[in-house]
Amino acid sequence: MATPNELLADIADVGVVPGRGGYHRHVFDRAETELREWFVGQAGARGLDVRTDGNGNIWAWWPGPGDDAVATGSHLDSVPGGGAYDGPLGVASALSAVDMLRAEGFRPGRPLAVVVFAEEEGGRFGVPCLGSRLACGSADPQRALGLRDETGTTLAEAMRAAGADPELAGPDRVNLPRVGRFVELHVEQGRGLVEHGSAVGVASTILGHGRWRFGFTGQGNHAGATPMDDRRDPMIPAARLVTEARAVARRFPDARATVGRLRPVPGGTNVIAESVDVWLDARAHEDADTRALVEELSARARELAAEEGCTARVTEESYSDTVRFDPEVRDELATVLDAPTLPTGAGHDAGTLAAHVPTGMLFVRNPTGISHAPQEYAEAADCTAGAEALARVLRRWSR
Amino acid sequence: MATPNELLADIADVGVVPGRGGYHRHVFDRAETELREWFVGQAGARGLDVRTDGNGNIWAWWPGPGDDAVATGSHLDSVPGGGAYDGPLGVASALSAVDMLRAEGFRPGRPLAVVVFAEEEGGRFGVPCLGSRLACGSADPQRALGLRDETGTTLAEAMRAAGADPELAGPDRVNLPRVGRFVELHVEQGRGLVEHGSAVGVASTILGHGRWRFGFTGQGNHAGATPMDDRRDPMIPAARLVTEARAVARRFPDARATVGRLRPVPGGTNVIAESVDVWLDARAHEDADTRALVEELSARARELAAEEGCTARVTEESYSDTVRFDPEVRDELATVLDAPTLPTGAGHDAGTLAAHVPTGMLFVRNPTGISHAPQEYAEAADCTAGAEALARVLRRWSR
Repeated sequence: MATPNELLADIADVGVVPGRGGYHRHVFDRAETELREWFVGQAGARGLDVRTDGNGNIWAWWPGPGDDAVATGSHLDSVPGGGAYDGPLGVASALSAVDMLRAEGFRPGRPLAVVVFAEEEGGRFGVPCLGSRLACGSADPQRALGLRDETGTTLAEAMRAAGADPELAGPDRVNLPRVGRFVELHVEQGRGLVEHGSAVGVASTILGHGRWRFGFTGQGNHAGATPMDDRRDPMIPAARLVTEARAVARRFPDARATVGRLRPVPGGTNVIAESVDVWLDARAHEDADTRALVEELSARARELAAEEGCTARVTEESYSDTVRFDPEVRDELATVLDAPTLPTGAGHDAGTLAAHVPTGMLFVRNPTGISHAPQEYAEAADCTAGAEALARVLRRWSR
Repeated sequence: MATPNELLADIADVGVVPGRGGYHRHVFDRAETELREWFVGQAGARGLDVRTDGNGNIWAWWPGPGDDAVATGSHLDSVPGGGAYDGPLGVASALSAVDMLRAEGFRPGRPLAVVVFAEEEGGRFGVPCLGSRLACGSADPQRALGLRDETGTTLAEAMRAAGADPELAGPDRVNLPRVGRFVELHVEQGRGLVEHGSAVGVASTILGHGRWRFGFTGQGNHAGATPMDDRRDPMIPAARLVTEARAVARRFPDARATVGRLRPVPGGTNVIAESVDVWLDARAHEDADTRALVEELSARARELAAEEGCTARVTEESYSDTVRFDPEVRDELATVLDAPTLPTGAGHDAGTLAAHVPTGMLFVRNPTGISHAPQEYAEAADCTAGAEALARVLRRWSR
């Protein structure tokens, strides 16, 4: 019987960023592939029946696929340079919960499944929850297969390189239709549970969120030979957009706007950029607020570009409306676990599944609230409490 | 007998950036290595005696090394995504000028050398004119060998991979001490010659220039789960520095300040950056102005960082004071060629050599003035006029 932390210790060396720390684990790269193999091995050691869908999502069934099943899981991929818990804690806790149930001689009345979703962070191909969106039919497989990573590799090419058949991408007709209820456990990505003084909590809502690429184009030129007044430098509107994003976000209730990725092309020290791509992550509780925020920033981007003799082009890369988790599931979880409910600003595969099956989410306390960074952390005792809570939910739902 | 454009056509496919156009040719990478081999082949076909110094600079001697020699040349490396002319035009024109002299039966009274300098752009290891600086003894070889490219490879490692011995890096005791005069031909990187109505011009000065890295550090975190008021986001001071650089540069006479390279770490769309590196290219006629500009921006960077709860660290990566070319050489070239004299804002190996031997520079007209970009261009007739002018200078100096 393994605790979540014993399982996380197994994979602690996989995909470490040399020097800096944190993890690069991107769908179908070497590290994420090693994690997939590790998971398949763990599932096999527990006698689970492993099936991989056409989108790279791995399902481990106890005893095998069947109707009205109870599923739980999370993801193994990370953001660039992310922490050890975001994703893997949910997978490790699911395996640990299965161990607890097996140890007590439990036999599921309804089938149980532990699932690992692919590309939850969108860290490689830009669209978050891509595996669960494809499986649920809420992402178009043709468009998804054409998405490119930073090196220009398409998802279809990455799948082929990983031995998967891109022709099979799209709605999952084997596993997902059999799920009657889904629950995801995740490290909290804020300090809500610290304030509640609770190791475990239940999600109420996921903030609506999306990603937009602002492409500014000017005239590449020589940094030394081009007088300041002769420039059409796309870095100027790009930089002004970064500060505008914060100013505009502050005008909407509890909205967030972030630029964490910005790429000047060609990116030479002595070269005025010819173009700059700026990625905006924007979130708000009300869909209308997110839309208004992004429209205001898009208009501002065009103004800022025009002032510099540049152009701006805005592309929506993904969008997810605010998720309100099934109230019955939410209240049941809160009552059974005697746990507080709280909202989250972070997206999750549970948010995708919530539109299809009754879904709930459990959070495990994060003492600093830091996430998507090497400092992301949860106490071992809290992780074990989370796995115990998950085992309780699975036992209750699948008896 | 080859024209400069015939020679440039030979190498037009080497290092092309797929899709975008322009060239990635960085010292000791595959493309630049192919250009080196091409040059050695061209020099051999002309019966020149080829020697590579310990810094990767290639010297092609006619007939062989000897005292009080006349040297000409430029570089084959490019900025990231640069144009076809910056560097290669000077090398191709030197070979073409040798062809003209050979065709007329000229035999050099003083030895002639065509030289290709390594890493003129600093596109890979960050320090411009690195090959000529090392050869002249104005860069420390131990420090240079430890410089790292974007992938973490050191110059020493890159040299070894290219079959060069890093132990030999440092002052050139074979070739450079034998040079009595140096002249570099280069495409103009502005529209000075367009305004003069002249195909060829003579350099008067090179604007003092340097590179500084501004490292901002904050707290990496989740883009969705971190409220706007809880952030220490280094992208904010980094973005503000970009616009401040322009504002501050405008307060100094004819100064330039550019941010063409900026890197958020870890660089995820849904990740508040933990740190951001911003590279500043700053130039001014007066050393005191460049220093004052950078000091003002450094102080501002620290203020901007502190306002966001971040820190700023400024590192000088290179600096070159304004070069005033030897007045006798300058006036002689202008008179003999009946060409205008003009300053440049771009750095060149000729600027490094000017501190050691009487040095001059020729420019070839650039109709748009655009440089360090795929649109960089010179008319074929102007390039031929440039090579003829260079032949005239070499004939005069080496008779």
